[in-house]
Amino acid sequence: MTVRIQSKDFWRAVLAELVGMMLFIFLSLVTAIGNKNNANPDQEVKVALGFGLAIATLAQSLGHISGAHLNPAVTLGMLASCQISVLKAVMYIIAQMLGSALASGIVYGVRPNTTDALGLNSLSGVTPSQGVGIELLATFQLVLCVIAVTDKRRRDVTGSAPLAIGLSVCLGHLAAISYTGCGINPARSFGPAVILNDFTNHWVYWVGPMCGGVVAALIYDFLLSPKLDDFPERMKVLVSGPVGDYDVNGRNDVTNMEMSSK
Amino acid sequence: MTVRIQSKDFWRAVLAELVGMMLFIFLSLVTAIGNKNNANPDQEVKVALGFGLAIATLAQSLGHISGAHLNPAVTLGMLASCQISVLKAVMYIIAQMLGSALASGIVYGVRPNTTDALGLNSLSGVTPSQGVGIELLATFQLVLCVIAVTDKRRRDVTGSAPLAIGLSVCLGHLAAISYTGCGINPARSFGPAVILNDFTNHWVYWVGPMCGGVVAALIYDFLLSPKLDDFPERMKVLVSGPVGDYDVNGRNDVTNMEMSSK
Amino acid sequence: MTVRIQSKDFWRAVLAELVGMMLFIFLSLVTAIGNKNNANPDQEVKVALGFGLAIATLAQSLGHISGAHLNPAVTLGMLASCQISVLKAVMYIIAQMLGSALASGIVYGVRPNTTDALGLNSLSGVTPSQGVGIELLATFQLVLCVIAVTDKRRRDVTGSAPLAIGLSVCLGHLAAISYTGCGINPARSFGPAVILNDFTNHWVYWVGPMCGGVVAALIYDFLLSPKLDDFPERMKVLVSGPVGDYDVNGRNDVTNMEMSSK
Amino acid sequence: MTVRIQSKDFWRAVLAELVGMMLFIFLSLVTAIGNKNNANPDQEVKVALGFGLAIATLAQSLGHISGAHLNPAVTLGMLASCQISVLKAVMYIIAQMLGSALASGIVYGVRPNTTDALGLNSLSGVTPSQGVGIELLATFQLVLCVIAVTDKRRRDVTGSAPLAIGLSVCLGHLAAISYTGCGINPARSFGPAVILNDFTNHWVYWVGPMCGGVVAALIYDFLLSPKLDDFPERMKVLVSGPVGDYDVNGRNDVTNMEMSSK
Repeated sequence: MTVRIQSKDFWRAVLAELVGMMLFIFLSLVTAIGNKNNANPDQEVKVALGFGLAIATLAQSLGHISGAHLNPAVTLGMLASCQISVLKAVMYIIAQMLGSALASGIVYGVRPNTTDALGLNSLSGVTPSQGVGIELLATFQLVLCVIAVTDKRRRDVTGSAPLAIGLSVCLGHLAAISYTGCGINPARSFGPAVILNDFTNHWVYWVGPMCGGVVAALIYDFLLSPKLDDFPERMKVLVSGPVGDYDVNGRNDVTNMEMSSK
Repeated sequence: MTVRIQSKDFWRAVLAELVGMMLFIFLSLVTAIGNKNNANPDQEVKVALGFGLAIATLAQSLGHISGAHLNPAVTLGMLASCQISVLKAVMYIIAQMLGSALASGIVYGVRPNTTDALGLNSLSGVTPSQGVGIELLATFQLVLCVIAVTDKRRRDVTGSAPLAIGLSVCLGHLAAISYTGCGINPARSFGPAVILNDFTNHWVYWVGPMCGGVVAALIYDFLLSPKLDDFPERMKVLVSGPVGDYDVNGRNDVTNMEMSSK
Repeated sequence: MTVRIQSKDFWRAVLAELVGMMLFIFLSLVTAIGNKNNANPDQEVKVALGFGLAIATLAQSLGHISGAHLNPAVTLGMLASCQISVLKAVMYIIAQMLGSALASGIVYGVRPNTTDALGLNSLSGVTPSQGVGIELLATFQLVLCVIAVTDKRRRDVTGSAPLAIGLSVCLGHLAAISYTGCGINPARSFGPAVILNDFTNHWVYWVGPMCGGVVAALIYDFLLSPKLDDFPERMKVLVSGPVGDYDVNGRNDVTNMEMSSK
Repeated sequence: MTVRIQSKDFWRAVLAELVGMMLFIFLSLVTAIGNKNNANPDQEVKVALGFGLAIATLAQSLGHISGAHLNPAVTLGMLASCQISVLKAVMYIIAQMLGSALASGIVYGVRPNTTDALGLNSLSGVTPSQGVGIELLATFQLVLCVIAVTDKRRRDVTGSAPLAIGLSVCLGHLAAISYTGCGINPARSFGPAVILNDFTNHWVYWVGPMCGGVVAALIYDFLLSPKLDDFPERMKVLVSGPVGDYDVNGRNDVTNMEMSSK
């Protein structure tokens, strides 16, 4: 397991994060800048659906390869929850930021001449500290949803986990889009910022979501649904990765067991 | 079971209701007051999706911990259906009202200076008694859905129960939002009312939903899908709680049995 | 089985159709007449979601009791597909029309003074024969979906059948609402028409959907996915009802068998 | 298997593609041309939902008969992934184009006199090469989703595959509709073009989606989730079709095995 970095599965997962992030950012940014008319609840519903369905679709398509985090705040939450190794988390976050920057560059190229927007996150009517609060809580519900839905101890997750996570992203956008443009994903905020070289208040979109992700993981693991395995055991995951690895549908192992035991 | 109040699970469930209610009210109120433009069907779709997806997401995340009632009318319906103890119901309703008031206070703090709205429920063009009727029927369908989806006798619930309940909340808002702003949840109406100290027609948002919840539970249990276990047995639940406890996905026990019997 | 009419289950199913139809029509009509602004795609999305989610929620809540047809065209399609007895179909259609008329009367009572609409279906820019065509095809896809999703020979229906049917209703409204107001349900069209005593072009909303429902059932059963059991056997169902009875989730019997055979 | 062309199942699948395509194009075109107001994000949400829910509904209804490709780009992707025979792919694409042309003709007949639109795809503010890029990436995510969801090696697809695919179509429309009107389906673009005899930039709607479909299939099969069976074995499928045949829900065989092995 310590030679993991040499395995094909490891690099395939990193590649899936890169490809998934490029698709996610491309699709959601072109959704956001088409018919730009931000002072309109319509546009907000359209953009929220765009981001949410992009995550739902990609989590469905790539969940079995990389877990389809597609979000540094989710990756950090999974790390705080001891469900991914430090090395993999670092590689995922690098892949996510790279994918986001590449996709933002592509959008910059294919967008019509009539618009100069690129879906940059910016604060609208709120102070940076209010923005951090909104981003933190909107990310909190997302990472709580991801960690709860993929909790392998549960036997009661009946529907589609990718859809549940996608709708959680949609909810975050419906809530936050009027105030912060809705980041809840530092890599998503990073892409347009680096292409336009505009980092005004950019720290808000890192501090809020990252704190939200970590807090959600800790509250779930220590307060709401405490895990019984002893602590040193869990810390090992940070070095060598989980035995069965993270899986977006959370029931993979069980089904396999079920199949083989018959 | 009578010493339940001392158990960690009991308090963990109450905590989950508190945390869940805070997230629900925060997310849905900021959704409702962003780009306030109430005379517009858009805004209604946006707000209805916000409330519905918030319940879907939180029921998915917290359903296995507390049942994710997040609504005194649902708690009262579950009580009328003898699926929760009186003590737990009282604690849940207190946690829900507290969570709603706290979240409304937070929204009061982070909202932009440009708005003075806080998502307060008020009647628009209807009399209080018409409002009670609309709230009653919109809550009726929600509690009917919750009780039917979590009915442990059913083997035919195939999709996601949290999503079904969330879409039922969305439906309630699409129907009622033009007339009463859509409460269908007394704790949700209570939060902004207590922060703004404005209790105009506030009784409508308690009488309508609470009656709707109780009526739905009674019609389901006595007329539509009568339960066969004898009455004294069921009344015991009110004191000591159900054996397997309420579970939002309704098939938890079965799956466990199924797993262990193999 | 011939004494079925005396059984409690039979009347409970008819009651469920009545209650379900009242809830469906009440919720969807108040959705449709709130903020009436029909020349707007917004309003269309709102109304389409209202009708679709109402059917999704009620099919989830009542499907195990009556099958949750909630639509004479669905009932007639199930009859053409020999999945329901003639007696039950007649009682269902009566219950649906009664429920729709009652709910339309209630909406007439609780609607604000500022509106005189009641969600009456009417043609807009199309001739009656064009209207029949649109209603026929919009109902065709709905009844095809109901019959395919509830086909007990299938083992591959993975998600929520009630949600699939609800989204099919939503689709019908998105398609037809600009032209005919979207009936695709004769009982839904009947309710407001009888309360307002306005039967202009009312036949369109019976001929189109009823033909669409029957054609969908016949094409599915004879062309797309032919049934192998011999014809006289199937005709018996029309008299005495199916052995396991219609079930909206289509896998009820299987699961039960599966459970008991373990 | 080589006499497949004479089998009833083969022709039934082709018929299902034809009927499904007619319904899909009819429903989505009437959705698109009702209340035509394209410069509006509303209309975009309405149209995106119309196309997405049409695919979700028809994949649910016809998936077990033909696989419900309903899109030459999906058929070509399945061919590149060696999951369908060349003969079947050719017949499917012919059926899809025929169905689309027939349905466009019907819409031409039933549309109101007040509109002269027919949902023709055209570029808006982008150059043809930008249009190819957008169509390519929007189709890439769709075909990736179809191939990943129907991957028979997966045991972790929990929700509804037809809904996942429908939401992926909805996502493609939200993203691309402002720029290219959103084809992502050459047959859908072909129908209105042939009826109106307007083939301006029509090649964009073939080159972009077809390339996107093939690239998605190759990246999934060779990079993201490589298949282990040897290459000559897979090439045989192109001639004689797969053993268990393509199935939209991807778990048909497994379930059947499971059932029979009990």
